[in-house]
Amino acid sequence: MRKICIVVTARPSYARIKSVMSAIKKRSDVKLQLVVAASALLERYGSAIDYMKTDGFKPDAVVYMVLEGENLVTAAKSTGLGIVELATVFDNLKPDVVVSIADRYETIATAIAAAYSNIPLVHVQGGEVTGSIDEKVRHAVTKLSDLHFVANEDAKRRVIKMGEDPDKVFSTGCPSIDLAAQISNTSTKNFNPFELIQKGVGEPFDPKEEYLVVMQHPVTTEYKDSLAQIEQTLMAISSLKMPTFWLWPNVDAGSDKISKGIRMFRENNHIPFIYFLKNMAPEDFLKLLINSKCLIGNSSTGIRECSYLGLPVVNIGKRQQGRLRGKNVIDVDCNKQDIINAIDKQLQNGKYPKEEVYGDGCADQKIVELLSTVELSIDKKIHY
Amino acid sequence: MRKICIVVTARPSYARIKSVMSAIKKRSDVKLQLVVAASALLERYGSAIDYMKTDGFKPDAVVYMVLEGENLVTAAKSTGLGIVELATVFDNLKPDVVVSIADRYETIATAIAAAYSNIPLVHVQGGEVTGSIDEKVRHAVTKLSDLHFVANEDAKRRVIKMGEDPDKVFSTGCPSIDLAAQISNTSTKNFNPFELIQKGVGEPFDPKEEYLVVMQHPVTTEYKDSLAQIEQTLMAISSLKMPTFWLWPNVDAGSDKISKGIRMFRENNHIPFIYFLKNMAPEDFLKLLINSKCLIGNSSTGIRECSYLGLPVVNIGKRQQGRLRGKNVIDVDCNKQDIINAIDKQLQNGKYPKEEVYGDGCADQKIVELLSTVELSIDKKIHY
Amino acid sequence: MRKICIVVTARPSYARIKSVMSAIKKRSDVKLQLVVAASALLERYGSAIDYMKTDGFKPDAVVYMVLEGENLVTAAKSTGLGIVELATVFDNLKPDVVVSIADRYETIATAIAAAYSNIPLVHVQGGEVTGSIDEKVRHAVTKLSDLHFVANEDAKRRVIKMGEDPDKVFSTGCPSIDLAAQISNTSTKNFNPFELIQKGVGEPFDPKEEYLVVMQHPVTTEYKDSLAQIEQTLMAISSLKMPTFWLWPNVDAGSDKISKGIRMFRENNHIPFIYFLKNMAPEDFLKLLINSKCLIGNSSTGIRECSYLGLPVVNIGKRQQGRLRGKNVIDVDCNKQDIINAIDKQLQNGKYPKEEVYGDGCADQKIVELLSTVELSIDKKIHY
Amino acid sequence: MRKICIVVTARPSYARIKSVMSAIKKRSDVKLQLVVAASALLERYGSAIDYMKTDGFKPDAVVYMVLEGENLVTAAKSTGLGIVELATVFDNLKPDVVVSIADRYETIATAIAAAYSNIPLVHVQGGEVTGSIDEKVRHAVTKLSDLHFVANEDAKRRVIKMGEDPDKVFSTGCPSIDLAAQISNTSTKNFNPFELIQKGVGEPFDPKEEYLVVMQHPVTTEYKDSLAQIEQTLMAISSLKMPTFWLWPNVDAGSDKISKGIRMFRENNHIPFIYFLKNMAPEDFLKLLINSKCLIGNSSTGIRECSYLGLPVVNIGKRQQGRLRGKNVIDVDCNKQDIINAIDKQLQNGKYPKEEVYGDGCADQKIVELLSTVELSIDKKIHY
Repeated sequence: MRKICIVVTARPSYARIKSVMSAIKKRSDVKLQLVVAASALLERYGSAIDYMKTDGFKPDAVVYMVLEGENLVTAAKSTGLGIVELATVFDNLKPDVVVSIADRYETIATAIAAAYSNIPLVHVQGGEVTGSIDEKVRHAVTKLSDLHFVANEDAKRRVIKMGEDPDKVFSTGCPSIDLAAQISNTSTKNFNPFELIQKGVGEPFDPKEEYLVVMQHPVTTEYKDSLAQIEQTLMAISSLKMPTFWLWPNVDAGSDKISKGIRMFRENNHIPFIYFLKNMAPEDFLKLLINSKCLIGNSSTGIRECSYLGLPVVNIGKRQQGRLRGKNVIDVDCNKQDIINAIDKQLQNGKYPKEEVYGDGCADQKIVELLSTVELSIDKKIHY
Repeated sequence: MRKICIVVTARPSYARIKSVMSAIKKRSDVKLQLVVAASALLERYGSAIDYMKTDGFKPDAVVYMVLEGENLVTAAKSTGLGIVELATVFDNLKPDVVVSIADRYETIATAIAAAYSNIPLVHVQGGEVTGSIDEKVRHAVTKLSDLHFVANEDAKRRVIKMGEDPDKVFSTGCPSIDLAAQISNTSTKNFNPFELIQKGVGEPFDPKEEYLVVMQHPVTTEYKDSLAQIEQTLMAISSLKMPTFWLWPNVDAGSDKISKGIRMFRENNHIPFIYFLKNMAPEDFLKLLINSKCLIGNSSTGIRECSYLGLPVVNIGKRQQGRLRGKNVIDVDCNKQDIINAIDKQLQNGKYPKEEVYGDGCADQKIVELLSTVELSIDKKIHY
Repeated sequence: MRKICIVVTARPSYARIKSVMSAIKKRSDVKLQLVVAASALLERYGSAIDYMKTDGFKPDAVVYMVLEGENLVTAAKSTGLGIVELATVFDNLKPDVVVSIADRYETIATAIAAAYSNIPLVHVQGGEVTGSIDEKVRHAVTKLSDLHFVANEDAKRRVIKMGEDPDKVFSTGCPSIDLAAQISNTSTKNFNPFELIQKGVGEPFDPKEEYLVVMQHPVTTEYKDSLAQIEQTLMAISSLKMPTFWLWPNVDAGSDKISKGIRMFRENNHIPFIYFLKNMAPEDFLKLLINSKCLIGNSSTGIRECSYLGLPVVNIGKRQQGRLRGKNVIDVDCNKQDIINAIDKQLQNGKYPKEEVYGDGCADQKIVELLSTVELSIDKKIHY
Repeated sequence: MRKICIVVTARPSYARIKSVMSAIKKRSDVKLQLVVAASALLERYGSAIDYMKTDGFKPDAVVYMVLEGENLVTAAKSTGLGIVELATVFDNLKPDVVVSIADRYETIATAIAAAYSNIPLVHVQGGEVTGSIDEKVRHAVTKLSDLHFVANEDAKRRVIKMGEDPDKVFSTGCPSIDLAAQISNTSTKNFNPFELIQKGVGEPFDPKEEYLVVMQHPVTTEYKDSLAQIEQTLMAISSLKMPTFWLWPNVDAGSDKISKGIRMFRENNHIPFIYFLKNMAPEDFLKLLINSKCLIGNSSTGIRECSYLGLPVVNIGKRQQGRLRGKNVIDVDCNKQDIINAIDKQLQNGKYPKEEVYGDGCADQKIVELLSTVELSIDKKIHY
C-alpha cells in the first residue's frame, strides 16, 4: 500500500491541499501520512493544526521549526532546521512519495529532505510566476521534484520549458479551487463569521453589512519596506471607514514589521470598524470572502480562489507580479490613494463572472488518482 | 569595499575556486571572506583546510556540519545544519555577495542561506548535466542564484533556457582549468608524489614507473549499489597489476560503502601495487595526473581538467552522464571487463590533444573582474 | 592577553553582567568577547542588544536561536540549537574562558558548548534556590562549571556542599547589585520613564503620581496554569486602579499564554491606568523601581536588587521559592485577594532599610580581578 | 498504561540497559518506547541497533545526531543536535517517563530534552566518580533528573549528598551486572568469537589459546594526548605478542586520533596476533571477557562487569579515576612499561573472586518495578 506523505506547514497550505488529503483518506489502496510543521502549529499564525484535527486528520508527526525573529536570518535558519528534522521524520515514516506545496521556505525544506533521502517528490503549484523570494524558491523546488501537478496549462508549459520531462508534468488544476467550487455551491446566507472567530480583536459589527477583507503579507525581497508598505494599506482602509475583516500576516521575513505596523496604527488611530483575526477554517474563510465586497492585499487567494469566485480584488505591490490572473483583479502600487481608487472601482463593479484560471474544482480527483497509480522514480535529467 | 564571501566545503571545491580566491586577494578594491566548512575540515576527507592555510588563506569562519553516517538521511541533515549555521555566519560577516560552487549538498546549503538572507548569490559551474542527486541540486541552485559564471557556451545556453536573464549569465570558463593551464606549463619531471602524501596507505613504488590514478565516488541515486559498483573497479584494477594511486571517495551518501568495499578488498586480496591516499594540494594532484597514464573512475576531474590536459580517462557509470566532454573520455558501465578493456584502449592510445571544453585557463581574471564590478541585485523573475 | 567571552542571552542577563562587562573593557590586560544571542536579539522581548550597543559594547557574534512557540518543546529545542551554534562561535572566537549567567535555558546551552569544547567555564549566580525548571538548570550548570562566582555566603556554602572544590567558589556578590548601588546614589527626581519607552502600550500618566510595577513570568513546571496565574494578578491590579508599569514576560515556556492573558484582559477590560512596556536600559529600569511604591510579580529582581533598594515587593507563587530574601518581600500565592492584601500592606509599610543580601555593590571589581588572574583549568572531580 | 521511553545512544549503553528493556517488555502494565540514536546507529561504532533488532526490540524512533570530526567542537554540536531532535521525538511519542543512561554526551541531550519537556526523568548509573568530561556530565544529569537508580550504596550516598531527595534515590544495582550474572552461569566452553564477528580486521587465531582483550577510549579532557596515549598501549601489547582482541574506541572527542593511531601502528608494525573488532552482542562480549586472561584499557566494563566476573583488569590513565572498584583492577599510567608490568602481574594472579560492587544481578527486576509503580513528578528542589 503506497504511503503518501503530505507536509503541511502553514495556514494557506492547508487550504490548498485539504481536498487532496480528504480524497486520499477515502481510498483504501493508499495511506495518508500527515506531517504538520512550522507556522501551522503556532497560535500566532492561527494554529492551522486545530482545523486539521477538527476535520478528522491525525498528524503522524509534528515538528516545531520556526525560529523567532521573523527576519531574513531566521527564515533561512528555519528552513535549515526544517530539513534536519523532516529528514528524521521521513527516515522514521518511510513514505513512498512526499508532497510539497507551493513556494514557501518550508516547501523547499520538505523538498530537500525528500530529494536527498531518495524519496520521489511531488510538487503542487509549480510553474507559476510571482515576486518575492517565493519566485526563486518555487522554481528551485521544481528542479528538485520528480512529478509536477500544476494548476493550468500556462504553468505546465513553463515547467516543461525549464527542462522537466513532459511526461512528468500534469495540469491537474489547483486543489484550492476544489474548496472554492464546493463553497460556491453552498448557501452562505446565515454565515456569521463572529461566531467562528476565537481570537479576533476589535468590535464585532453586523455581518449583513457590506464589508471588505484585507490580507497583506511582507515581500521578503523588499524586507526593509515592510512597515512603510502596510501603513499605506492601513491608511487607505481607515479612510474608507467600511467594516473590514483583516487577517494577520503569514510567518515570513518582515511579518514582525507588519504586525508592529498594525499594532502601532491601532494604538494611535480609532479604527473600530476593522476587526483583526488570525485564522478560520479554510471553508469558512471562503464564505467570508464570498459575502464580502472586495479582497485587498497581496495574497495569492485573490488571484487563485477569487478568480473562480468572481470576487473583486485589489492586488497591491509586487508579491503576485507575473502570476496568471482573471479579470477580477486590479493591480496597484503600495500607495494609499491608488488603493482607495481601486477599491472604489471594485465596489462599483461588483462581482465578476466565474473564471477557471486555476482549475475546475476537480483537482483532488485527478491528483489522488495520479498519486495512487503513477510510476514513481527519483532519477531525472534536464531535457536539453 | 565589496566583500566577497566564498564558501569552500570540500576537497574538489577548493581546486575549482582557488585561482579565483588568489585573484581576489591580489585586488585592493575587494575583500575576500573565506568560510571553510563540511568535509573540507575533516581528516577523513583530506583536510582541505590545511592546504588553504599553506596557500596563505585565513578562514574568517569555520563550520563543522557533516553528520556521520554517509547515508541519504545524514546527507539531508548535513544540508539543513549547514543552512542553519551559514545563515549565522553570513549574518555576522555581512558579505555583499556570496559565491557557491558546483552542485554538492553543501552548495545548496550555501545557496539557500544566502538567498533567504537577501544576499546576492553567484553560482559557479551551473548549466552542466550529470547523473546522481547532483543533477537536481545543480539546477535548483541555478534557480536560487542571481548571477551565473558558467564554464562554456553549452552551459550558458542551458542556464538561459531554464529562464535565467541572459544578462546575468557569463561564460567565464571553469577556474579549475586555470590551475590545469598553469601546471601544464610547469616541469613535472622530478615530481615525487610520495614525498607529498602524509596519510597514504600501501607500499610506495617508483613514481617513474607507468601508473594509473583511480577516483570513484558513490552515485547517490544508486545508493544501494555503491558497494557492488566499487568492487567492479577494484577487481579491474587489481587484475591489471599496474602501480596505481587511488583516492578515497568524497563525503557523499554511499561513501561509507565505498570505503568499506575498499577496506574489505584490501584485507582479502594482496594488492601492494595500489597506494591509497586522501588528498594532495590541488596543483600536486594535477601533477600526479599529468604524469599518469590514465584516470579511472567517475570524478568530474576526468571530464574537466583532463580534457585540457589531454589525459586518457575511463569514465564509469552514470555519475557524469550528460556532461559535455572531450575526446579523451571513454565511457563504460560499472563492469570489471568493460573497465579493463577501456583502460587497455587508453593505454594504447596515450595522450590526447588539449581541448578547451571547460575554459582557456583565464577564468579567474574574468570572474574576479565580474565579482568586483558587476551590478548586484536579489530581484529576479523567470524570463518566460 | 586572556580572552573572556560573555554570552548574553536575555534582557535580565544583561542587567546582571553589565557592570562586569564595563570593568573588563576598562582593563588593558584582558579582552572582552561579547556574544549576544536568543531573546536579547528579539524585539518582542525588548531587544536588549540595542541597549548594549548604546552602552558602547560591540558584539563579536550574534546568534538567533529561539524557536517560536514559547512552549516546553520549543524551549528544549532552543537550548539544543544554542549549543550547536555557540560551539561554532567558540570554535571561531577561541576564548580562554566563558562566562555563563544564572539559570536560564540559554545558560545551560552556553555551559554545555563551553564544557564540551574544553574551555574553562565560569558560572555567575550559582548556588541559589528557586522553583521552576530554573532550579534544575542552575545546579546542573554548577556541575558543568569550573569556577563559581556566587552572590553570598549562603550560595557559596550550597555550591561547596554539592561537591565543588572550595578553592573554586568565590562569594563575589551579584553584579546586579552594582548597578543598584550606583543608581541608589543618583538623583532620580526628574526621571520620566515615558520619555524613555519606545514601544509602550497604554495611556501615559503623570510619573510623579504614586505607581506600581508588575513583572510576572511563567513558571515552566506549572506550564498549564500560566494563563490562570496571570489572570489573578491582572484582576488584583485592575481592582486597585493605581497607575502601573507592567513589563511583558521573558521568553519562557508559557510566555505566550501570559501575553495572551494580558491581551485578552486588555481587550475585555478598561484599564487605562496600566501601561505595558517591553524593556528599558538596566539603569532606567532601576530608577523606575526606586520611584515606585511596590514591585509585584515573581521576578528575581524583587529578591535581588530590591533587597538592596529597600523596595517593597509582593512575590507571587513558586518561582522564587527558596531563594534567600530580605525583609522587603511578602510572599503570596497566585490569588487575587492575597495579592491585593499584600500590596496594601506594602503600601502602608513604605520603603525598607537597605540589605546587602546579594552583595555590596562591588561585585564587578572582584569578578574582573578573578577573571583576569585566577588559574584556569577544565579538570575537576567531585569532592566526596 | 505507563509509557517508558528508553534512549539508547551507544554500544555500551545497550549492554547497560538491555536487561531492563527485556523486563519491561515482559510486563503487560507498562509499554516500552525505544529510541535509538547517535553512534548506536553507526557502522563505524558497531551498529548496536542491529543487535537490538536481533534481540527483538523494534525502535519507535531513530535519530542520526553525530557530527563527524570526533573532536571537541563536534561533540558539543552533536549534543545540541540531539536535544533538538529528541525534543521532537518526545513531543510525538509523549512518554510518561524517560530513562537516560550513564554519563555520555548523548545522555545529557536526553536529559535536557526530557527535563525541558516536563517529562519525569530517570537517571541510571548516577553518583559515580570518574575522570574525563563524563565526570561533569554525570553530575549535571543528576541535577536534571527526578529519580535516580544507582549501582551501589556509595553512589546513593553521593547522589543524596549532592542535595537530591533521599526518597528519590534507589540503590538498584547496575543492570550491566544482570547480563554478567546470567553469562557467568552459562557454559562458554565452545564459544568461538570469530564465528560472531562480521567486521573484524586481522588474522584469526585459535580461540582456545590464552588471549587478552583491549578496549581503550579517549579521555576528552586530555584530548590532545589521545594519540600519544594509545601508542603506549599499542607498544605494550605488541611487545607481549599474545593473541589479543582489540575493540575500536567509542565515538568521543579524540576517537579519531585513537583510530588513526591504531591504523598507523598497524601499517608500520607486523602485529598479526592482534585482531580488531567493532562490536559484538552484549552477551557475546561478556563471553569473550570470561574466556580471556585480562582486560586492558580504560573501559568502565573493567570496573563494573569485570568485578563481578572476577576478571583481571589493567586500568590505564585517568578515565576511571575515582570510580569504586574491586580487587580485580590494577591501575597504571599511560606508560608502556607500566602496562606490561601490570599485565604480567595479572596473568600470574589469574581470576579473582566474584565481588558485587555494582550489583547482584537483579537490577532489572528492581528497576522495572520502580519504573512501573513509583510516583512520577517533575517538581524538585535541592535538599539544603
